Amino acid sequence: MRDFSNDHRWLSINTATVRRQKGEEVGLARIIDQCAEHGVRAISPWRDQVAAAGLDKVAAQLRAHGIGLSGYCRGGFYPAPDAAGLKAALEDNYRAIDEAKTLDAPCLVLVVGSLPGALAGKAAYTDIGRARNEVFDGIAASLEYARKVGMPLAIEPLHPMQAAERACINTLEQALDICDALDPQDSGMLGVALDVYHVWWDPKLQQQIARAGKKRLLAYHVCDWLTPTRDLLNDRGMMGDGVIELKKIRGWIEAAGYAGYSEVEIFSTQDWWQRSGEETLATCIERHRSVV
Amino acid sequence: MRDFSNDHRWLSINTATVRRQKGEEVGLARIIDQCAEHGVRAISPWRDQVAAAGLDKVAAQLRAHGIGLSGYCRGGFYPAPDAAGLKAALEDNYRAIDEAKTLDAPCLVLVVGSLPGALAGKAAYTDIGRARNEVFDGIAASLEYARKVGMPLAIEPLHPMQAAERACINTLEQALDICDALDPQDSGMLGVALDVYHVWWDPKLQQQIARAGKKRLLAYHVCDWLTPTRDLLNDRGMMGDGVIELKKIRGWIEAAGYAGYSEVEIFSTQDWWQRSGEETLATCIERHRSVV
Repeated sequence: MRDFSNDHRWLSINTATVRRQKGEEVGLARIIDQCAEHGVRAISPWRDQVAAAGLDKVAAQLRAHGIGLSGYCRGGFYPAPDAAGLKAALEDNYRAIDEAKTLDAPCLVLVVGSLPGALAGKAAYTDIGRARNEVFDGIAASLEYARKVGMPLAIEPLHPMQAAERACINTLEQALDICDALDPQDSGMLGVALDVYHVWWDPKLQQQIARAGKKRLLAYHVCDWLTPTRDLLNDRGMMGDGVIELKKIRGWIEAAGYAGYSEVEIFSTQDWWQRSGEETLATCIERHRSVV
Repeated sequence: MRDFSNDHRWLSINTATVRRQKGEEVGLARIIDQCAEHGVRAISPWRDQVAAAGLDKVAAQLRAHGIGLSGYCRGGFYPAPDAAGLKAALEDNYRAIDEAKTLDAPCLVLVVGSLPGALAGKAAYTDIGRARNEVFDGIAASLEYARKVGMPLAIEPLHPMQAAERACINTLEQALDICDALDPQDSGMLGVALDVYHVWWDPKLQQQIARAGKKRLLAYHVCDWLTPTRDLLNDRGMMGDGVIELKKIRGWIEAAGYAGYSEVEIFSTQDWWQRSGEETLATCIERHRSVV
């Protein structure tokens, strides 16, 4: 297992972690500068942040700082109540793949979506099996495009508490079953983004990480599970403040061959998004070295 | 599949559903009277409610009304930081089994526990694998006692969002693996309590229900998953108000041989616990007939 205690060369910052600082939204250009000041070598930006800052400007800024990507957030959200909606979702994913290529991302992360409309509180249908079929077809079509462009897709299984609104792929096993069906040759073009927050509870986690192997493990995200957790979405903890066995899980993925970044992704309305970006980044670095 | 539309003979009320009425705690004796007034044939009471009302008094009141149990809530919470704690938890489970017998319950429901202390916000340890081993040993010891007394144990897999605080058994597959290990003869003394709220998201749900079969399916709980869900514990919805495919899942369990009660278990601080018991019970009956 790699020794993280001496530096933070394998730390990546998902830009959602510092998208709000002292309660205020902060632009991506400023976030990239802050990461550079803290010696962060990689980030994972979100599409809306990139769109607001300008895709080409972001690409140029990253090159100027020598900062790479650990992933691009995010494609997915395939299900829709009708054919027009399914088509629009696919086209949006093609654009996301192109953007990821422009930014030289190692992978596009897919939050696949679930019951359409549920995120707004009113599901257009409740058949999660249908949503899963639409997701399967959507990934298949995206993969065809991604192969041409040369952009690997990383399916992110989301915590089951997000199964209605954000993703109907909820376990690593389920994600790997889809990978095996659509990419039986294990080409490196389809794999998973493993976020400890979503999967730490899974009794089959160790087994399925071993099954995934190096070629399927395209990204690794860390944060922590707080007790109590006060919100289903935006109450993630800083590494070390919760109950997730971070070193144990990293041991498993490294034993499976993963040697990439450890990306910090924290959504925290009440705590970290109320602090300064400097404090949050410094804490990420310190915890990366001590508890990740 | 049974027709529920004409009556509510297969409806059971988990007494937590009406434990608070118009914001006030209500005693079990009153709840039992209300259920009798509404023609409810079965309930599933909680140990703390039974203790407050008096075990023998509750048993007598149920006999007088001709009301049976669909289960007894609850044993479990096995993990502990030390041997004394493990022993105390076991002894408490033996008492729960005895109480269930006195009340003539068809099963004792087990919410198995997880990281000790996490429920109070401070986990004594974070090794969920250790908690799972302690749970396995606890169920094994409880089963030995339960066999003597003649009280089936129903393991309730809890939603993964409860994995830190309340139960480290989080999927039906995991629960059935334990059943098969401890009761390979499928004796009817060890099975599962299936609550749709905890398992509706599971991509392997249909497959694992078929695997469970009639002898392992000891109890069935219903409510609904709201979008958004505002609280990890106490924001369950009334059947029909959320996204769970209730009739589909009941179809699966009945195809597997289940022919028992459909037990309504709703924790709802902001909504149903603010209403009158009469309104809640009448709504349970109406939804049981129309959407369950």
